[in-house]
Amino acid sequence: MDKMEKLILITNDDSVNAKGINSLVQMAKKWGRVVVVAPDKPQSGMGHAITLSDPIRLNQVYLFDGIEAYASSGTPVDCVKLAIYEILECKPDLVLSGINHGENSSTNVLYSGTMSAAIEGAMEGLPSIGFSLANYDADADFMQYESFIDRIISQSLNQNFPKHTCLNVNIPNADSTDIKGIQICSQAHAFWADRFDKRKDQFGRTYYWLTGEFGEINPKEDSDLHALNGNYISVVPTHFDLTHYEVLSHLKTWEL
Amino acid sequence: MDKMEKLILITNDDSVNAKGINSLVQMAKKWGRVVVVAPDKPQSGMGHAITLSDPIRLNQVYLFDGIEAYASSGTPVDCVKLAIYEILECKPDLVLSGINHGENSSTNVLYSGTMSAAIEGAMEGLPSIGFSLANYDADADFMQYESFIDRIISQSLNQNFPKHTCLNVNIPNADSTDIKGIQICSQAHAFWADRFDKRKDQFGRTYYWLTGEFGEINPKEDSDLHALNGNYISVVPTHFDLTHYEVLSHLKTWEL
Repeated sequence: MDKMEKLILITNDDSVNAKGINSLVQMAKKWGRVVVVAPDKPQSGMGHAITLSDPIRLNQVYLFDGIEAYASSGTPVDCVKLAIYEILECKPDLVLSGINHGENSSTNVLYSGTMSAAIEGAMEGLPSIGFSLANYDADADFMQYESFIDRIISQSLNQNFPKHTCLNVNIPNADSTDIKGIQICSQAHAFWADRFDKRKDQFGRTYYWLTGEFGEINPKEDSDLHALNGNYISVVPTHFDLTHYEVLSHLKTWEL
Repeated sequence: MDKMEKLILITNDDSVNAKGINSLVQMAKKWGRVVVVAPDKPQSGMGHAITLSDPIRLNQVYLFDGIEAYASSGTPVDCVKLAIYEILECKPDLVLSGINHGENSSTNVLYSGTMSAAIEGAMEGLPSIGFSLANYDADADFMQYESFIDRIISQSLNQNFPKHTCLNVNIPNADSTDIKGIQICSQAHAFWADRFDKRKDQFGRTYYWLTGEFGEINPKEDSDLHALNGNYISVVPTHFDLTHYEVLSHLKTWEL
C-alpha cells in the first residue's frame, strides 16, 4: 500500500448486497484504498446493538473491481469492531457508513444501524461519516449525488475533523439538480407516534408490526429536518456523550 | 384503578424471567400500580434496536402476586412502544428499566438495552429511569439496595422531573452497608479496547466472540465511573440530542 494512500473503511446496515453501499464504494475509491466490512443481511433499525451471546461469522466476498470486502453475521457496530480489531492492519483514516436506503435525520439517529456504525467509528477516535438518502427504493439512483458526497469526503480528509465526533449526512429525496446545497445543522427534536398493526397468523395467534408517523416537536430553523424540507443536504456533528448537562444543577437539589 | 395511584411501567433487557426485574417490581409496587412488559429472552447489548422486518409476539405471563405482566419477542425499546401504544390505557407516570445484571455506566449507555428502553421513555416525554448493578451474577442480591432505589423513585415522582430526560443509575458491586451515597454525575468518556476470540467450530470454520477491556479516557472528577470506583451510586441525566454543539461553528468554516 502506498504510504500516502488513505485507508477507508466502508460499512452500512442494509447489507453488503445493497445498492447504496455499492455506490458509496464507487465514489470513495478515488480517495484511497477501500475495505468493505458489512452485514451479510439487512440490519435496519439495529441501533447500537452488538452481538454478545452468539458467535459472529465473517467471510470474504466478491464485490467488484478487486475491492477487498467482507460480509459478517454481526450488526453494523460489530462490523466496525471486526474491521478495526481483526481485519485491517492499521486504523483507517476514514470510516464511511451507508449510503442508507432511507433517511436517518433527527432522533432516527438512535435507531439507525448506519449511524450507530459511524458513532462507533467516532468512539474509536476515527473521522466517521454516515450517509443516508431519503428514498427507500432498493434501486434508488445514488450516483447522482456524487459531487456533494465528494465535497464532504474531501473536507473530512483535508480539514481538521472534530475528534470523537461523526457526521450524520442526510440527502433529501430530490433530483440532484434540485438540491440547493449543504447545511450544517443540529438534530431536530422529532418523535415517532407509533402504531402497531395487530394481525392474526394462520393459527389465529396475534402478532404485531411496528409502524407510525414521524413529527417534529419544537421546530427550529437550524434543524436537519428543516434543511431537508428545504431541499438541502443536512450535516449534523454527532457525538456520544448523552449527559444532559443543563439539568445537572437541578438534579443536585434533589434529596438523594 | 385509584385515580391518585401512579402507573409504573417496568421493562428490562435481561428478560421477564431475570431476578433483577423481579426485585425492581417488588420495590416499585409500593409506589403505584405496576405493569411489566419485558423481552421473553435475554437482549443484552441490543442498544436502541427496534424490530422492523419481523412480526412481534406478545403474551401475558404470570410473574407473582397478581402483577400484570407481558413477555414480548421484541427488543427492550419495542417493549416500551408496545406498552404505551398497545397495552396501557394511559401514559405511565414513570418508566423503570432494570435492574440490569451488569453495569451500564459511561459509554455503555449506547450498547445497553436497559438504558435504551429508558431513553425511549424519555423520547415519549415520560419520567424514566434505568437501574443497573455492577454484578453479572444471575442470583445477585438486588433487594439490599432498596432504600437507595426508593430515594431515587420518591424524588422522581415528587420533584420536577426534567423533561425528555432519563436517569442512568448505576450501583457499585458492594455490600449496601459499604455504599457511601448517591452522586449526580456526567457520563465518563471511556472506551472498549475490543478483542475477538477467534475459534474454530466442529467443521473447522472460523467464528468470533466479542470481548475486550474497558478503560477511561480523560478521567474527570464528576464522572459516573469515578463515583462507582468510590462506592457511590451514580445518577447521570441522559438525553437523546446527540448534536455536538461545540463543533458546529468549526464545521461551518468548511468549504461545502
